[in-house]
Amino acid sequence: MKMDKAELEAFLDREFPQMRPMRYRIESWDGRCLRMAMPVGEAHLRPGGTVSGPTMMAMADCAAYLLILGQIGPVALAVTTNLNINFLRKPDLSDLIAEATMLKLGKTLAICEIGLHSAGQAAGPVAHAVLTYAIPPAR
Amino acid sequence: MKMDKAELEAFLDREFPQMRPMRYRIESWDGRCLRMAMPVGEAHLRPGGTVSGPTMMAMADCAAYLLILGQIGPVALAVTTNLNINFLRKPDLSDLIAEATMLKLGKTLAICEIGLHSAGQAAGPVAHAVLTYAIPPAR
Amino acid sequence: MKMDKAELEAFLDREFPQMRPMRYRIESWDGRCLRMAMPVGEAHLRPGGTVSGPTMMAMADCAAYLLILGQIGPVALAVTTNLNINFLRKPDLSDLIAEATMLKLGKTLAICEIGLHSAGQAAGPVAHAVLTYAIPPAR
Amino acid sequence: MKMDKAELEAFLDREFPQMRPMRYRIESWDGRCLRMAMPVGEAHLRPGGTVSGPTMMAMADCAAYLLILGQIGPVALAVTTNLNINFLRKPDLSDLIAEATMLKLGKTLAICEIGLHSAGQAAGPVAHAVLTYAIPPAR
Repeated sequence: MKMDKAELEAFLDREFPQMRPMRYRIESWDGRCLRMAMPVGEAHLRPGGTVSGPTMMAMADCAAYLLILGQIGPVALAVTTNLNINFLRKPDLSDLIAEATMLKLGKTLAICEIGLHSAGQAAGPVAHAVLTYAIPPAR
Repeated sequence: MKMDKAELEAFLDREFPQMRPMRYRIESWDGRCLRMAMPVGEAHLRPGGTVSGPTMMAMADCAAYLLILGQIGPVALAVTTNLNINFLRKPDLSDLIAEATMLKLGKTLAICEIGLHSAGQAAGPVAHAVLTYAIPPAR
Repeated sequence: MKMDKAELEAFLDREFPQMRPMRYRIESWDGRCLRMAMPVGEAHLRPGGTVSGPTMMAMADCAAYLLILGQIGPVALAVTTNLNINFLRKPDLSDLIAEATMLKLGKTLAICEIGLHSAGQAAGPVAHAVLTYAIPPAR
Repeated sequence: MKMDKAELEAFLDREFPQMRPMRYRIESWDGRCLRMAMPVGEAHLRPGGTVSGPTMMAMADCAAYLLILGQIGPVALAVTTNLNINFLRKPDLSDLIAEATMLKLGKTLAICEIGLHSAGQAAGPVAHAVLTYAIPPAR
């Protein structure tokens, strides 16, 4: 672990002020699994009263980014190169939870897996994503 | 073609008021290729002054959705089941353009391809996405 | 569980004789996780002495298929509609192991996650795949 | 173009003898689009008399590889890092055709798009794949 929970939250707040409206919070980060939550509100809803796909994609992307920074530190300007997401179930209106783990952290690529859940839902994940970030050479 | 350009824009405005801040506009729709544009502003920027990944994902998702509605009409409550996106080049600050075409329109699944370009950029697409929508049985 | 380990192996042998050269065997199947193994031989190797990508893709596809049949029974003529695979590490020449679990089993789509490992390798998975199968309506 | 059609075919035959049973042939290569064909025979069939998914994946992977080598030359030991494929229509028993084009050729990653068609089929592509290859630094 190169950055702890508080450092990641401070980094996110400082470097990505445009994400503040999402009100992401890191629930836990143990060096292996990063768990993030967001409250679900009107702004993310589509017809039918569900969380929008882009809201879930943005959260998966952010969780993967924090996972990588947590492991390699704030030096890198990592960028997403690939995202694959499957939408599985309709989320409910409870908090959305993202759990991110690393499939591989290489020298130039980091591949992360993210499960998205509705906080109160036992049926299973609402979405599942795999993301690849490119890591710049100088780190 | 079941809905024309004006009908699609009216539908988008009426059913997805939360997307109005993106200021999407349909540039052309010929029954085969749907071309959509959005102005690029501060709200979509990440550090380094580029359009954010989630902004591009949301636009690809919306372009695919309109392409499907344009072909099957407004009856369906189609939902995204899979999105795969590759981020290829750094967009510049000109308009972002999405060109959506259908790979397959089946009875239960529609698979669409979306190329995303910066309006002024000749180097090649900034992102490329393939999306699957599930189409509800009653249509 | 609609088919047990022996039924799945018999089904595979009977319906897919062309896969016999792969010598897949089901190591375990508990109704939730299906674990399959294959011996690694010359036929699957690429330059550099590693298992080929197509070999891993074929194995992931087969593991997902057996997982689905194990859960819904032999009636369905399920077909793969989407496969996303990330190749993570160079496999070694020990057995290749696939562990398949269900992300969602819906009425028309089944989405499965498959981790591929080299039997003797602690470093982490050699590949990770997510597959979608379409399930025909009459089952 | 760093390698022409004849050089690519010679390279494939020499370096990948295990692929000879597929009887791939390059139909055309103009420096931008590489078109490859394979005869379809019993060995690739699944129940229902269709070409197997793994056969199509292997062909997409090979076409992308040749496309990259055609553009950067035979020096690189490029490896597939990601493949996303959608299976769209049932192929028939005519030749399978792969058309590969480059979405982006970067310093460390090459992203290729491959459309797979049945030679005699006008309905549309039978599969569509996007592949990422990692290119080793020394080239």
